Amino acid sequence: MANKKNSHSQKINRKTGMHPGSVYYVGEKREYIPNLYLVEYNKESYSQTKLASIDDIKNVEDGSSVRWLNVEGIHETSLVEQIGQKFNLHPLILEDVVNTSQRPKLEEYDNCIYITFKSLVYDGKEQKIVPEQISIILLKHIVITFQEQADDTFAEVLERIKHAKFKIRSKGSDYLVYALIDLIVDKYFNSIEGMGTQLEELEEEVFSSPTANSLYKIQTSKRELLDMRHSVYPLREVISHFQKDDLEYIDESNVKYFNDVYDHTIRIVDTIETYRELNAGLKDIYLSSMSMRMSQVMQVLTIIGAIFIPLTFLAGVYGMNFEFMPELHWEYSYLVFWIVIVVVTTGMIFFFKRKKWL
Amino acid sequence: MANKKNSHSQKINRKTGMHPGSVYYVGEKREYIPNLYLVEYNKESYSQTKLASIDDIKNVEDGSSVRWLNVEGIHETSLVEQIGQKFNLHPLILEDVVNTSQRPKLEEYDNCIYITFKSLVYDGKEQKIVPEQISIILLKHIVITFQEQADDTFAEVLERIKHAKFKIRSKGSDYLVYALIDLIVDKYFNSIEGMGTQLEELEEEVFSSPTANSLYKIQTSKRELLDMRHSVYPLREVISHFQKDDLEYIDESNVKYFNDVYDHTIRIVDTIETYRELNAGLKDIYLSSMSMRMSQVMQVLTIIGAIFIPLTFLAGVYGMNFEFMPELHWEYSYLVFWIVIVVVTTGMIFFFKRKKWL
Amino acid sequence: MANKKNSHSQKINRKTGMHPGSVYYVGEKREYIPNLYLVEYNKESYSQTKLASIDDIKNVEDGSSVRWLNVEGIHETSLVEQIGQKFNLHPLILEDVVNTSQRPKLEEYDNCIYITFKSLVYDGKEQKIVPEQISIILLKHIVITFQEQADDTFAEVLERIKHAKFKIRSKGSDYLVYALIDLIVDKYFNSIEGMGTQLEELEEEVFSSPTANSLYKIQTSKRELLDMRHSVYPLREVISHFQKDDLEYIDESNVKYFNDVYDHTIRIVDTIETYRELNAGLKDIYLSSMSMRMSQVMQVLTIIGAIFIPLTFLAGVYGMNFEFMPELHWEYSYLVFWIVIVVVTTGMIFFFKRKKWL
Amino acid sequence: MANKKNSHSQKINRKTGMHPGSVYYVGEKREYIPNLYLVEYNKESYSQTKLASIDDIKNVEDGSSVRWLNVEGIHETSLVEQIGQKFNLHPLILEDVVNTSQRPKLEEYDNCIYITFKSLVYDGKEQKIVPEQISIILLKHIVITFQEQADDTFAEVLERIKHAKFKIRSKGSDYLVYALIDLIVDKYFNSIEGMGTQLEELEEEVFSSPTANSLYKIQTSKRELLDMRHSVYPLREVISHFQKDDLEYIDESNVKYFNDVYDHTIRIVDTIETYRELNAGLKDIYLSSMSMRMSQVMQVLTIIGAIFIPLTFLAGVYGMNFEFMPELHWEYSYLVFWIVIVVVTTGMIFFFKRKKWL
Amino acid sequence: MANKKNSHSQKINRKTGMHPGSVYYVGEKREYIPNLYLVEYNKESYSQTKLASIDDIKNVEDGSSVRWLNVEGIHETSLVEQIGQKFNLHPLILEDVVNTSQRPKLEEYDNCIYITFKSLVYDGKEQKIVPEQISIILLKHIVITFQEQADDTFAEVLERIKHAKFKIRSKGSDYLVYALIDLIVDKYFNSIEGMGTQLEELEEEVFSSPTANSLYKIQTSKRELLDMRHSVYPLREVISHFQKDDLEYIDESNVKYFNDVYDHTIRIVDTIETYRELNAGLKDIYLSSMSMRMSQVMQVLTIIGAIFIPLTFLAGVYGMNFEFMPELHWEYSYLVFWIVIVVVTTGMIFFFKRKKWL
Repeated sequence: MANKKNSHSQKINRKTGMHPGSVYYVGEKREYIPNLYLVEYNKESYSQTKLASIDDIKNVEDGSSVRWLNVEGIHETSLVEQIGQKFNLHPLILEDVVNTSQRPKLEEYDNCIYITFKSLVYDGKEQKIVPEQISIILLKHIVITFQEQADDTFAEVLERIKHAKFKIRSKGSDYLVYALIDLIVDKYFNSIEGMGTQLEELEEEVFSSPTANSLYKIQTSKRELLDMRHSVYPLREVISHFQKDDLEYIDESNVKYFNDVYDHTIRIVDTIETYRELNAGLKDIYLSSMSMRMSQVMQVLTIIGAIFIPLTFLAGVYGMNFEFMPELHWEYSYLVFWIVIVVVTTGMIFFFKRKKWL
Repeated sequence: MANKKNSHSQKINRKTGMHPGSVYYVGEKREYIPNLYLVEYNKESYSQTKLASIDDIKNVEDGSSVRWLNVEGIHETSLVEQIGQKFNLHPLILEDVVNTSQRPKLEEYDNCIYITFKSLVYDGKEQKIVPEQISIILLKHIVITFQEQADDTFAEVLERIKHAKFKIRSKGSDYLVYALIDLIVDKYFNSIEGMGTQLEELEEEVFSSPTANSLYKIQTSKRELLDMRHSVYPLREVISHFQKDDLEYIDESNVKYFNDVYDHTIRIVDTIETYRELNAGLKDIYLSSMSMRMSQVMQVLTIIGAIFIPLTFLAGVYGMNFEFMPELHWEYSYLVFWIVIVVVTTGMIFFFKRKKWL
Repeated sequence: MANKKNSHSQKINRKTGMHPGSVYYVGEKREYIPNLYLVEYNKESYSQTKLASIDDIKNVEDGSSVRWLNVEGIHETSLVEQIGQKFNLHPLILEDVVNTSQRPKLEEYDNCIYITFKSLVYDGKEQKIVPEQISIILLKHIVITFQEQADDTFAEVLERIKHAKFKIRSKGSDYLVYALIDLIVDKYFNSIEGMGTQLEELEEEVFSSPTANSLYKIQTSKRELLDMRHSVYPLREVISHFQKDDLEYIDESNVKYFNDVYDHTIRIVDTIETYRELNAGLKDIYLSSMSMRMSQVMQVLTIIGAIFIPLTFLAGVYGMNFEFMPELHWEYSYLVFWIVIVVVTTGMIFFFKRKKWL
Repeated sequence: MANKKNSHSQKINRKTGMHPGSVYYVGEKREYIPNLYLVEYNKESYSQTKLASIDDIKNVEDGSSVRWLNVEGIHETSLVEQIGQKFNLHPLILEDVVNTSQRPKLEEYDNCIYITFKSLVYDGKEQKIVPEQISIILLKHIVITFQEQADDTFAEVLERIKHAKFKIRSKGSDYLVYALIDLIVDKYFNSIEGMGTQLEELEEEVFSSPTANSLYKIQTSKRELLDMRHSVYPLREVISHFQKDDLEYIDESNVKYFNDVYDHTIRIVDTIETYRELNAGLKDIYLSSMSMRMSQVMQVLTIIGAIFIPLTFLAGVYGMNFEFMPELHWEYSYLVFWIVIVVVTTGMIFFFKRKKWL
Repeated sequence: MANKKNSHSQKINRKTGMHPGSVYYVGEKREYIPNLYLVEYNKESYSQTKLASIDDIKNVEDGSSVRWLNVEGIHETSLVEQIGQKFNLHPLILEDVVNTSQRPKLEEYDNCIYITFKSLVYDGKEQKIVPEQISIILLKHIVITFQEQADDTFAEVLERIKHAKFKIRSKGSDYLVYALIDLIVDKYFNSIEGMGTQLEELEEEVFSSPTANSLYKIQTSKRELLDMRHSVYPLREVISHFQKDDLEYIDESNVKYFNDVYDHTIRIVDTIETYRELNAGLKDIYLSSMSMRMSQVMQVLTIIGAIFIPLTFLAGVYGMNFEFMPELHWEYSYLVFWIVIVVVTTGMIFFFKRKKWL
């Protein structure tokens, strides 16, 4: 049971008393060196470079193409601090980037917009949702993104950037931000679908063969839905900031796209609420199902008593030692006794069957 | 049990990673070719034409009569894209039209108003609600509607248009939009009524003869009410946009009509909430009913034991081998024994009956 | 059980597909001819006339006295349409007047204010609430009211009008509207009181002698409270319109009176909420009460077994056929056996009594 | 059980159909003549007079000192009407003063501010809360207060007025209103404390020795918390009116004091919510506790059967009449039989004890 | 059970009837003399002095460095009153400082901002949260803080002040206020973590070995979460005041920092809500777990009966005294009897095992 631990409390930061702005990584420790990719594109050209160091970025002030710096890995806090210095980021941003227990939020700073939220990928094999914290910093001439791991979270957007035919190549960095958020939100649908399938299987299990473990699964599913809700719900607010088109760097013509993502998050929240209600319903069904099974067992056992106790009484009668019991001396008494036994037993079983007690 | 699956998760879109604006149909695959109907009417004249191709529409800019293009079937995405090109629709509209898992919404674009919501028709035989996504695009000189299937969803409105005596013939395209929404909302009442009848039957079943299946039906009904709520609730907001009479294309004199539809949706939402509460009540009644039945069975079985165990004791007494037991030698002992047995048994049954235990 | 039907779904309109503004009566069919009463009064004079036809009303534009036309019965839709024509009412008003499943609402039209809500009268004998739809149309020179039945709903207001000493005689038609609403809301208190008494009786029943029927009553009471809430809750909004004193025809000096009615509706809503909570509590008490009764029965039955099984064992011992059992030959064995039986039984009963198991 | 009645419905007014402004007392009938006290004070002087009649008040328009008229008893409606005439109060105020089922509210009239709310005093002996309706009317030169009974509700404020050292003597009538509200709200804390102690005792009872009566107490406590909530919740709104410092007669420098009372009411509401949740928790604990007790009894009873049924079987074996049963003829059989019985019984008891079933 | 008391009611103030502004300490009585520390710092210098008396503070109007007066202990109300006089604080502030049952709040006075809230420190050994009321008064030239006890609540901030390298040394007194609030909020995370661990252990206990005490722990945990919620929830509002940057004394550049603390409180509230839901889930699991255990015991006991009752019947049969029972005279009857007994018993046990009843 030890490994079934509620890992929620582990996510909470442990940096009490540090001074504000201290860049302290609270996530899982990782060994590898974080990857740095710089993607540059405009309508005509496209390039993707793996950087050895943050100093490889030149001409930061050049606005002729969209620049996107993707950092895979935030466990190396010194790297995050270097990036902070290079782009003159507020200390609180750096603190938040490496604190993987952030609540989704959008904050406007003097020189940038900072967005953080969770990517939720459904691991079908383990039947659980794997969260990853994503940070996006939208500066005037560059978009910086931070992921926790070196995985292919942004692969689909990268793929689209490679091909000149897609609209993203002719749009600015605000559209890139939209594309990244849209991608993550689209992946939420997979997670939701995974949760849905899980609930269906659980429902089938609970109706057909509930075990004590089913209840544990229901409680776990409840916790996951709660966690998911906490990740998606505040994202609505984040995205709604883009809809008001009063944010710097966001072009008015792209507001429609953010509206679209906003609708998606509402749909996800709706579905999560539905699943939470169904989960609560499942618990009731489980409890009812279990108690019914128990009762049915008790019923069968009690029926055995109900049949044999009267028979034992009958046998007891003819075990009595009265001097004057005429049946005792009749030749066919014993045979008749057995016939009576068989008839009574059959009758009772038939009666119980008809009453659906057996 | 396999076909009783929660089909909710299937509705969720599966187009993660596609570029925004990609027209990807997520509904059920259908074989037939979508129908295109063009209805043109004004106070004097009326015509309905089945179009072979979208290019058959001429004089798009002519405003002398109301034009209504109804598209039955959205599985042919190329047709939707052609319509989009012809009327210069925003890519996100086309994406939403074919994505049948939309949440009801209204969006204003530069050249049109886009509305999408669900038609909910109650299938009395299957005792379930069949959803269909409806999209309405209100352009300056034409109203375009998209249905998922070639059914007669809009039949009643078409019928009214045919007759010059009805008000719709002398009204503009905003009134047509109202008439279509009003029709769909009116059909919600049928669905609600269907759900109500279902709940009544369920209530009767639960009170008179509950089975394990009743609980399944209650859970299914709960899910349907949740789904219905998600379809109707956001429609309120959609319609409230029309009430503020600041939408382009909407004539102020027609706002009253939208008020009326708005009230209907509120009544539907109220009724759904009532049904949800009654559904929750039913579940409690079911659980209580089941456990009471179980207990009554156990009671009857236990009563059999409670009657025969004392009798068996009595028989056991006279089976004892003590040398000095005067009763054994009395001639009428055996007769008296049976009389006692009958009297005791009758007394106990009478007692249990009076206590309402039997 | 068939007559215990949830009649909720019957209330829902059945006019899908009719054109908006079609005057279609959805309530119970009635046979009699609707009554038309015209009441005219001012500070000096008062008259009440039963009209044969709507054309008997003359001088509609005369504002020297308050005119009140009361229509008892809305099942004759042609009459409603005549009234509509005479006073130039919007078709949607007429549609709403005869549609008895309206949600309480207030709507401002160009020439009038339209208010509709429910009268709820508690039928003490049947222990249920009888709803009736009331419509009030406040025109410039006349107030028109529609009731479903020819009953004395407005009797108390009429009585006050008859006597010159009451304030109503010196006030305008807005005060009449207030007086009518106030009367209906005052009657709500009777209904609430009826529900309260019902809950008290139910509570006593559930504590002292719960039956399966109690649960049915609790569920029915829950449904009635929900229905009542749906009737009263939106009335709050309706009345709040009058408080803002920006409605035409409403004199500022009368706003205080509407404040008062508003407070009453809030108190009613509060009480309904309290009753709903108490109702939910009753259900829990019922369930607990029933399961406790069941358990007590089982306990008594099991105690019978617990007493006689050991005794049967003892009898069984002395029914054994061992050759060497000294007790069998002792003269007083049988007497001692019975003494032991009596002592053991008495002891156990005493023990069970002290433990409060019996 | 008859005296355990839910007295809630009794509180509801019974004056349906009376004309608005009719002064009709709905509370308990009382015999004594209401007391009238006039308190006059300013920085220098102080006087308290018991008035024989309302006409004893002279110089009503004199503003040199704060005047406070306290009326103990509102069952004499003629007195209330006299006061109304003397100070020119709106009829609706008088109606509300004597209607003891008012919801807390504040209303501004042309010549006064009218405030009504409940005093809740905890009766420790009866363990219940005794409500009393308080009305405060703040006129330009006088404060009038109405209590239901001749008790010492305002004693602490009177005491402070007597001593020149207290701030109240140098403040105006708005501060007096504050002092009175503050006193009543402070007394709520005692009631809350009483409810808290009651819940603690209930919790102890439910954990240690639950009876069917405990459930009744829990339901009663739930109802009291609901009633209390209805008394305190709207008071928040009432007091918040004073905070906005736009009320006539309220000096800006005293707003801070009303803020303070406001905070107190919020704390009370918070505590009530906590108690309601704990109450709900208690109910669950009670139900669980009761069903566990029941089960334990059944367990003990069943164990008696489980021990003696096998023993009876053994006795039965040696009661068989087979001709060839070697044990029957062995001399020590009977002794061995008893040894076996004792060993088996001891073993089973030991086993059940270890399993914690006994 | 006596020491398990709900200590909630004790926290409520007991000063009914005292005049407003009376400085009355309601917390636990303490013996020691409160400590007074004065910390003065600016970019260059730093000093910390323990004061003997409040008069040791000189040059109160000097604004060249940040001054922080920390008072450890508020049970000496005369000291609090002296401080009030020296800094000219409003009497209501002093009343609130010593009333340890305050709800978190922020109030603006003419010469200062007053903030009060709770420090919640998790006592790991006792597994409970220890609350302490913190008051912060932000005057123009000094920050005064009050703690209930002489503990090291503010140690981490003091430590940072000592070192010139930290940002706090170059910031004003508003930043000090932020740093203090931030520290307390950071400590909430520890408390939350403690509650989380407690819930995990409880979950494990409930799944593996539930006892009646588990339910008590669940109820206690529920109460603690409610208490915690009441401490943290209003703090959100308090901090949001700082975000609107319209407070005097708060520099605009520090608003970002308050945003950060605000986010932390939201995260804490979110987590508390999650824990409350999990707590509710635990209760259900406990109830189900307990009833399942009970049922399993009953099942085992009933199985003993179900096996031996039929066997007893068989023994009874051969104890009958019929004259003609051929088996009685067969030599191997007794042996066969025992073989039948063993076979039947083994068969039943095998059957029950396969059915998972045993």
